[in-house]
Amino acid sequence: MTTVSILGASGYVGGELLRLLAAHPSFDVGPCFANSNAGQPMANLHPHLSLAYPGKSFAPFDISLLQGSDLIFAALPHGETQRLADALTGSGARIVDLGADFRLNSAEDFEAWYGEPHQRPDLLGQFIYGLPELHRDRIRNARWVASPGCYPTAASLALKPLIDAGVVESTGVIVDAASGVSGAGRAASAGTHYCGVEGSFRAYGLTRHRHTAEMEMNTGAEVLFTPHLMATSRGILATCYARATGKHDPLAILRDAYADEAFVHVGEALPETKWATGSNAAFLSARFDKRTGTVVALAAIDNLGKGAAGQMIQCANLMFGLDETAGLSRVGVYP
Amino acid sequence: MTTVSILGASGYVGGELLRLLAAHPSFDVGPCFANSNAGQPMANLHPHLSLAYPGKSFAPFDISLLQGSDLIFAALPHGETQRLADALTGSGARIVDLGADFRLNSAEDFEAWYGEPHQRPDLLGQFIYGLPELHRDRIRNARWVASPGCYPTAASLALKPLIDAGVVESTGVIVDAASGVSGAGRAASAGTHYCGVEGSFRAYGLTRHRHTAEMEMNTGAEVLFTPHLMATSRGILATCYARATGKHDPLAILRDAYADEAFVHVGEALPETKWATGSNAAFLSARFDKRTGTVVALAAIDNLGKGAAGQMIQCANLMFGLDETAGLSRVGVYP
Amino acid sequence: MTTVSILGASGYVGGELLRLLAAHPSFDVGPCFANSNAGQPMANLHPHLSLAYPGKSFAPFDISLLQGSDLIFAALPHGETQRLADALTGSGARIVDLGADFRLNSAEDFEAWYGEPHQRPDLLGQFIYGLPELHRDRIRNARWVASPGCYPTAASLALKPLIDAGVVESTGVIVDAASGVSGAGRAASAGTHYCGVEGSFRAYGLTRHRHTAEMEMNTGAEVLFTPHLMATSRGILATCYARATGKHDPLAILRDAYADEAFVHVGEALPETKWATGSNAAFLSARFDKRTGTVVALAAIDNLGKGAAGQMIQCANLMFGLDETAGLSRVGVYP
Amino acid sequence: MTTVSILGASGYVGGELLRLLAAHPSFDVGPCFANSNAGQPMANLHPHLSLAYPGKSFAPFDISLLQGSDLIFAALPHGETQRLADALTGSGARIVDLGADFRLNSAEDFEAWYGEPHQRPDLLGQFIYGLPELHRDRIRNARWVASPGCYPTAASLALKPLIDAGVVESTGVIVDAASGVSGAGRAASAGTHYCGVEGSFRAYGLTRHRHTAEMEMNTGAEVLFTPHLMATSRGILATCYARATGKHDPLAILRDAYADEAFVHVGEALPETKWATGSNAAFLSARFDKRTGTVVALAAIDNLGKGAAGQMIQCANLMFGLDETAGLSRVGVYP
Repeated sequence: MTTVSILGASGYVGGELLRLLAAHPSFDVGPCFANSNAGQPMANLHPHLSLAYPGKSFAPFDISLLQGSDLIFAALPHGETQRLADALTGSGARIVDLGADFRLNSAEDFEAWYGEPHQRPDLLGQFIYGLPELHRDRIRNARWVASPGCYPTAASLALKPLIDAGVVESTGVIVDAASGVSGAGRAASAGTHYCGVEGSFRAYGLTRHRHTAEMEMNTGAEVLFTPHLMATSRGILATCYARATGKHDPLAILRDAYADEAFVHVGEALPETKWATGSNAAFLSARFDKRTGTVVALAAIDNLGKGAAGQMIQCANLMFGLDETAGLSRVGVYP
Repeated sequence: MTTVSILGASGYVGGELLRLLAAHPSFDVGPCFANSNAGQPMANLHPHLSLAYPGKSFAPFDISLLQGSDLIFAALPHGETQRLADALTGSGARIVDLGADFRLNSAEDFEAWYGEPHQRPDLLGQFIYGLPELHRDRIRNARWVASPGCYPTAASLALKPLIDAGVVESTGVIVDAASGVSGAGRAASAGTHYCGVEGSFRAYGLTRHRHTAEMEMNTGAEVLFTPHLMATSRGILATCYARATGKHDPLAILRDAYADEAFVHVGEALPETKWATGSNAAFLSARFDKRTGTVVALAAIDNLGKGAAGQMIQCANLMFGLDETAGLSRVGVYP
Repeated sequence: MTTVSILGASGYVGGELLRLLAAHPSFDVGPCFANSNAGQPMANLHPHLSLAYPGKSFAPFDISLLQGSDLIFAALPHGETQRLADALTGSGARIVDLGADFRLNSAEDFEAWYGEPHQRPDLLGQFIYGLPELHRDRIRNARWVASPGCYPTAASLALKPLIDAGVVESTGVIVDAASGVSGAGRAASAGTHYCGVEGSFRAYGLTRHRHTAEMEMNTGAEVLFTPHLMATSRGILATCYARATGKHDPLAILRDAYADEAFVHVGEALPETKWATGSNAAFLSARFDKRTGTVVALAAIDNLGKGAAGQMIQCANLMFGLDETAGLSRVGVYP
Repeated sequence: MTTVSILGASGYVGGELLRLLAAHPSFDVGPCFANSNAGQPMANLHPHLSLAYPGKSFAPFDISLLQGSDLIFAALPHGETQRLADALTGSGARIVDLGADFRLNSAEDFEAWYGEPHQRPDLLGQFIYGLPELHRDRIRNARWVASPGCYPTAASLALKPLIDAGVVESTGVIVDAASGVSGAGRAASAGTHYCGVEGSFRAYGLTRHRHTAEMEMNTGAEVLFTPHLMATSRGILATCYARATGKHDPLAILRDAYADEAFVHVGEALPETKWATGSNAAFLSARFDKRTGTVVALAAIDNLGKGAAGQMIQCANLMFGLDETAGLSRVGVYP
């Protein structure tokens, strides 16, 4: 068995990792770190895990506790992985990091979108971008992986094959997406209060959401990205618009691109986020609108699944030479 | 008092009309028609109205019962107003129709988008389009008004002043919108089952939703419209994209356009649908994204309020020379 | 016009008071106090009120600002009204307080249920309990009113006539109730995070919720009360169980008791909380189960309406000799 | 591998069975029957299953297709299993039936609660009641099992050990429970329309819900049962009240009763339905209220998991000598 440590184990992504690892055939859960909740029983934060991890508690981060870990899953607040980079990379364990710290290739882009200089530009090129459908072979051989966020995963899966195939132009791309509230994390705030979300829908981060940078890096296109908050706990739907070149049927291109993928379904049916809930699946579709010369491409995922914990495990499966689907589901909990 | 008849009184729009009319100072509810539910006590379909309309029942449609009505609100299934046009227009009462039957100016456009020839093209020019912020004076003098649907109301309020002022180009406009389930009406179907909507989000009617025609008519722009179904009962958010000309600040233009409007709020804050729930208010905002040369304009309304029953009453207030705000609220039920 | 001050104006009850007062024919909104949010524009906390109160801000509490107020609505955190009692009662204004501070008749009961001695037992008998259906005449003549909370309002309306009429025994009464999240107030916390509430249901405060004391005071019965948190923003449903004496039909007794009430509907139909959303209505029903010898009585209200702000205004209408229904709706916003 | 047929495969329970079987190590999905949806691609009804069952369709029921099946899961409309009893029992396959047809021991009780005579009283004693925590050994040796519904599962798990241990009296027991909408099945109706459920809560089936009979059979107590419909897709919370004898701590009794159970968690924390979503877990707690002499016991399950499909598979695991937990999760999808 491979021993896995989790950093940021008390958050929603941490909880989802623990849920999935409870059924993983080859990964064994080792120390679970959660600084602000250190010392607390896991059941206080993750009551749904009570039967799977009886008596387990969160530990304060201590580098010596990483000894014996073969794999580190990091789901930390922004900036923390940069700060801990020496400790983590020096541990000898493989790393799958969900933070944005090492996702971008360029320190300039990082500073432009995150508004602060990167602390460890020397490491930027050494983390492999963890989207298996795009970089499977590099992930297989990676020591360190930076797993993409939920929005870029959805948008890149929908757009990348279309741009690569020349189905659409690479300027003027619009990604209009909606996310469930768990994407905002576990911290209680005015924005995550039940009463402000139930029965409502709103845009946020208009024109300057940081995930734009990843979408542009992955697709090579210029992207305007508008995220919305929707009244669900989980789910991402990305509705992507791009000017058609008229050369190919976008749906056929997507079918082709993902024909051999275990977790990607391409079909005529317009995808719904709930189809993916609790799973690592991505549901895609696309249409060409001749009247306006536009391609609309859609992707639905679970932001905590394929958009976070599921994808981290998918990457780790590759890194350890396991069946890529080990411990992961392709079927959402529906309805 | 002005006596009002309602056609389609058992539906959601009918119920919202009845709720608002219960507090209207000048309109008195007369016969309420509801063919499929004729004979049923109103409380069976609208239990929330029990205290306001004790003992009232729905009647089967009978033209003779329209005698004595000064005003007819029609909230009928598609095509019904065309079929009843002679009876309604011949009754002598003023009419506010929520159907799509007489909204478009052109029989060609109707046929192109609705897939069937218009039955009464002779009447098309005689119904005034009931969006008071655009056509107030014409509505004041109208006998017959065709009140716009929820999506065109939201999108047109957000886009029309920007296009008129030359802030954005009139081609390549995208309207990406989300609606609450009540927009699909009261009929039970797979698509409105609670379990398929809760926790989910999906696009529908891709590239060919009929409301596109109204948006194009109102704004003069070429529009690609993508509606989504969201997990709320009420609310519309329209997120509109258009290529900027760079000439003006879109927010300033919107503020200017609606400075004197009782029901339209323009502000920096990104609008949320719940702010408008149960009211006739519209909340607007806009941003110019210099990086991609795009304007994003947003509008939030209640699809049953400003998007249906509220707007119908606003039109009727104008038609009868009343205070435009009579019986209407500018404050949503929040949270 | 009567000038009204609001204490605790930035909370959910404050927002609901402001929403209702915007349409009240005789009450005019004066200073709005909100200590923790003092200085903030009202639109930051209550964006839905933007069109009704443009430019208005919250003030820090200052007793001198109460001069000129004829009426004070207090919706303060627990204990605050006791602390401010001299300032408020000395202001000369009439007071409607939503806090629990002056609801109970007995200082002993207060200490038993609230776990702390009452600071102003001298004033306990001087606040009239603000449930108009039970104490209309006393409220009419009151200077100071302590308006009941949402759970006791629902449970007392359902149970009091049955106990008074001897339909049920006064021991072994169980009130099993569910509340929307707004009852927990605006403060962000783990318990009000969207993700922990959506798709879930739970009991809380088992066997010792403080509102039990009010239910027992109002009905004269011994009550075991179990509140639940449900995945809605608003609404209370109280399902009440009591051993039948077999003497009378409980539904007939309720119909009789509330025949002349403007805001109480008694019917065969089992009440749903949404019928009352945004209104001051209460929907009641009851059944006698011969098999087990039990009466089940149900009441549905909006916890922010008849359970808070609506009832406060109903009391104030009585205190100022106005029509009891002024500014209040009997029709919920449904669906 | 064991070949499994599913009757009623297009419903919600059918979908959940298929979801779980996709990951089951020993059960292989054979023919899936769905009369009203016969011939349809499975993906039309269960789009979330698209990746797991590509190309699979529903078959019309045909007894000859059962040849080769070792196990039949039946999730049929009420009465159908009685009608098909000869075909099913004659097939030689083992049967796990979710219908109510063979759950009760007594034809008299069946007629009293279901309002119709039982068609096959001869078979009543031959179906074993499929609640493993109560009847594990009998299930292990059963050919035919009648798996209990969601409400009786939750209530019986919470109450049975308390009644058996004499902690509570066996008369005057009240089960007040709330269910998610999926319990009402997939059929679209006024009662399952999104708009009537979102933001609402209501009781139904007052005093005479059919599941009462099972609760009484399982616990030996006289039970008054009140189900409620809550605004979630999944989940059951049963809040049970019974008069305490004062002899024992109810929580200790429950801990003891379920100490060795894989799927039952007993704890101080009040259970929330979402902890169990998508899993076969049951979360229990209990309190003794000395003041009123009452025990309150609570159980939370997923109505489609431990309340339906999960429990059916748990029974089948026992019947086939497999690990009882095979293919089942003890961890809910949370948040």
